[in-house]
Amino acid sequence: MEGGMIIFCCSSSAGSPLVFFLEDKDQSLWWEFGGLCGFHIRGGRLERQPGSEGAERKKRVVVLGTGWAGTSFLKDLDISTYDVQVVSPRNYFVFTPLLPSVTSGTVEARSIVDPTYRGRGASLAPDWNSSLGVTVLNGWALRNKLLADCLKIDAANNKVFCRSNLDENLAGDPEFSLEFDYLVVAVGAQANTFNTPGVLENCHFLKIKEVDDAQKIRRSVIDRFEKSVLPGLTEEENKKNLHFVIVGGGPTESFLGAILQDEIHCISFELQIFDERISTFAKLKFIRDGIDVQTGCRVLGISDKEITMKTKSKGEVRQVPYGLVVLSTGVGPRPIVQGFMEQIDQGKRRMLATDEWLRDKGTENVYALGTIDQRKIVDDILSIFKAADKDNSGTLTIEEFQDVRDADGNPRKEVDFEGFKEALCLVDSQRKSLPATARVAAQQGSYLTKCFNHREQCAELPEGPRQFHGSGRHQFHPFWYKHLGQFAPLGGEQAATELPGDWVSMGCSTQWLWYSVYASKQVSWRTRFLVVSDWTRRFVFGRDSSRI
Amino acid sequence: MEGGMIIFCCSSSAGSPLVFFLEDKDQSLWWEFGGLCGFHIRGGRLERQPGSEGAERKKRVVVLGTGWAGTSFLKDLDISTYDVQVVSPRNYFVFTPLLPSVTSGTVEARSIVDPTYRGRGASLAPDWNSSLGVTVLNGWALRNKLLADCLKIDAANNKVFCRSNLDENLAGDPEFSLEFDYLVVAVGAQANTFNTPGVLENCHFLKIKEVDDAQKIRRSVIDRFEKSVLPGLTEEENKKNLHFVIVGGGPTESFLGAILQDEIHCISFELQIFDERISTFAKLKFIRDGIDVQTGCRVLGISDKEITMKTKSKGEVRQVPYGLVVLSTGVGPRPIVQGFMEQIDQGKRRMLATDEWLRDKGTENVYALGTIDQRKIVDDILSIFKAADKDNSGTLTIEEFQDVRDADGNPRKEVDFEGFKEALCLVDSQRKSLPATARVAAQQGSYLTKCFNHREQCAELPEGPRQFHGSGRHQFHPFWYKHLGQFAPLGGEQAATELPGDWVSMGCSTQWLWYSVYASKQVSWRTRFLVVSDWTRRFVFGRDSSRI
Repeated sequence: MEGGMIIFCCSSSAGSPLVFFLEDKDQSLWWEFGGLCGFHIRGGRLERQPGSEGAERKKRVVVLGTGWAGTSFLKDLDISTYDVQVVSPRNYFVFTPLLPSVTSGTVEARSIVDPTYRGRGASLAPDWNSSLGVTVLNGWALRNKLLADCLKIDAANNKVFCRSNLDENLAGDPEFSLEFDYLVVAVGAQANTFNTPGVLENCHFLKIKEVDDAQKIRRSVIDRFEKSVLPGLTEEENKKNLHFVIVGGGPTESFLGAILQDEIHCISFELQIFDERISTFAKLKFIRDGIDVQTGCRVLGISDKEITMKTKSKGEVRQVPYGLVVLSTGVGPRPIVQGFMEQIDQGKRRMLATDEWLRDKGTENVYALGTIDQRKIVDDILSIFKAADKDNSGTLTIEEFQDVRDADGNPRKEVDFEGFKEALCLVDSQRKSLPATARVAAQQGSYLTKCFNHREQCAELPEGPRQFHGSGRHQFHPFWYKHLGQFAPLGGEQAATELPGDWVSMGCSTQWLWYSVYASKQVSWRTRFLVVSDWTRRFVFGRDSSRI
Repeated sequence: MEGGMIIFCCSSSAGSPLVFFLEDKDQSLWWEFGGLCGFHIRGGRLERQPGSEGAERKKRVVVLGTGWAGTSFLKDLDISTYDVQVVSPRNYFVFTPLLPSVTSGTVEARSIVDPTYRGRGASLAPDWNSSLGVTVLNGWALRNKLLADCLKIDAANNKVFCRSNLDENLAGDPEFSLEFDYLVVAVGAQANTFNTPGVLENCHFLKIKEVDDAQKIRRSVIDRFEKSVLPGLTEEENKKNLHFVIVGGGPTESFLGAILQDEIHCISFELQIFDERISTFAKLKFIRDGIDVQTGCRVLGISDKEITMKTKSKGEVRQVPYGLVVLSTGVGPRPIVQGFMEQIDQGKRRMLATDEWLRDKGTENVYALGTIDQRKIVDDILSIFKAADKDNSGTLTIEEFQDVRDADGNPRKEVDFEGFKEALCLVDSQRKSLPATARVAAQQGSYLTKCFNHREQCAELPEGPRQFHGSGRHQFHPFWYKHLGQFAPLGGEQAATELPGDWVSMGCSTQWLWYSVYASKQVSWRTRFLVVSDWTRRFVFGRDSSRI
């Protein structure tokens, strides 16, 4: 038994009971407890990881963030090859697509968060839940996940500087640093206010996808209803308090609007859903439900009482009193990423740029996932075209073109220069403008896991396309986003969806498709069970409007 | 349709959709929505309460608080006779006996709170859930429950002054006053720190029974575990952070200790459980589990790092470093009650005193439930004895004694003066020291409902005992607490219980009895379903240690 762990279960004055747990014969009991409640196992045999000593030093991977990108990366990473440290300000993963449901109380915050983010291979304890496909927070997670904010990335010295965000009164220095061989930056983004005055002070934000924000919105909505029944409020005051404004009109926002509309009928927001047919359908439905959809407006400023808006077409400026504003527009990099970008000469960019392999431009061993700007590939590949087109014919033969594929990923028989350029521009425009969604982040995370797990094999047998700047091939295939469609729940048991192949579906059946897709996409059986039981509860018992 | 409600569903700019809901033909749809989500019904036909206009003015009852006492009082109150207004800083009821489970994540906070606190007779909307015995937050609750703190009771003018605790930025004056014919004070108590220095600043409190406190304790426990894995902490620092201290040793505290002990083995607390056999059993079990039980200690002060304790027997003073202190000792009156006590000449008392009918001494129409001090009945009844004993024989004949009963409530054939006094003192000592528990509060609430519902009948046919100070009988039976036993969960699937008839049961089967009693005691099918599914979830998936 390693001495370092004894402290977890001893009291300064009760010495003897220690033996109870420290003796090996009781280990089975210990494991059993561990299976039931996360913490015991954490205090237990953490140091017993087989093969963790003696062998040659494993490469150290530091992962910043436990959102979609970080979690997807960690899920299948081979931890027998890497020594992994995760730094995150929260000790759980959030299923962000259901956050708008938290604002309305349809789904509980706790049902969509999961402290279990290591799937296969990492469970050091015999896990009696494994038959259900579930892992409780296990020894691996304890030792390798640190609850802290990363303050600074020092790429030149392969170090990150962190500060624990835990209770300040606790003993011990909250600041520490970690060294890495590879760094994976998956910290997400923060709301972009576009420097509009009053936004930070007076708005709620949903785009940054934190549980706190969703809960705050929920509580604010309830507050406004509760206020409306207090004695002495005029009709005018109530009208103002119950005017909910949502700025932004993507699928998340329309979802939020739809949900709030289930509660009240006075929401105005700008609507720009991905597909025009869906936009029209949604707009008509919202108008029918009493939602005032304002498109073509710009918010000039937000005071504590009013929003100042400007109509783009007529240039008309008007003040609208409000009770609640949710801003859900763009996102920008977090300060830590901003600081890192300045270090690697990307200070003037809007977002951190990576190459096709998600490696940050300007570094060798730092990767970024999630809210990033992937390098424009058109320029590079045009050079490749010219180099490959050895006979200067303006076309490539099938041999010359074997590594270049069309927008659908299929090999092309032959292509002329203009067609090639056009195809590439199409690809490029799709690639560089990947939205900051869960699915993009998850695909990037999984892609990077594959690269990390096959690093040695691919060093010997590179699987990537031919290199232009060097000789031979790139080690890995570049990252390629697969679009699988998008949902926009519209409230009142209606939803719209856009699927690949220009297929659009709207209405009640789509809502049921939405339910089943979102249930199946849950990361664990635990959250799946909880989310489905939340939906059931809502159907049977109605919404819970408790203000907690 | 009453105009006052239109504001709930209109937007300043979208006028037309209103018609959709205001037309009567759509009423069915409206009800259906209402059944699904609390709020719609709240904005709906609130003014349609049958018979609410025209009839003679109903007596106004103002209830302060929605805890056990207030909720039990409201549950069966006949609202066709009274006009009820409830003022409470929270819009839900908490099943407090399970709050300690919230600290450990065994049960979710939301599973033990219930926004539905009106049972029968109050649902103005056709409630499709009624087959399940559930009412969603309904029109009654909306119009009659105000989310506010009561600041002052003005008993002389039959008024209470309140201030909404909602978002300060909302339009409308947060302060208002309410007039009453009857006032029911059921605001609970607050932690009594006995003026021990440093307690307010450095302790967590569980006794005040708020959801917030339980959630803060949970988060603090998780913080301490997360801190323990950060790099660079010494063994000494970890030992300190993970030393949890619970001051107080009643059933609630032992429950908390038991739960925390499931997570860690270094808790010290004083133990004084109701029954000595249980105390001994619990103490042995806790010591076996590594909990350091210190009895006969007094806390002199708490700094941010250490507790100073004094052993009562030896007078030895020592400092104990700690990571977390939960104080769970006595309770005292809230400031609002303190102020009221001063008004009615009870300023020097420890608690608000009432007579046998729960009416505040010194007022005619103010009742108090929960944490109160019931009047000593011995003095009064001794006078009754002397007055009844007309022949000055020192004994009462059966006719003289017909309204006086023994400690078990049975009529007595004959009694001498000393025996009578002794019996009364026994009764009295039991009556005045009723603990501040859920069951006492609930019984008081139900008792008062009966008085209120039978006020007219009992005015004509009084059911109470003979009056001494006036002629005839008291209108009602006095309040009488029925003790039904008490549980003390001890962790690790063990519990102890004390039942009437001096019956004590301890062990694993008692834990199962505990589960079934607590499930059946839930106030609604909704919370029953949630609590049972939380327990199931914990068994199957383990505890959730997410820090939210």
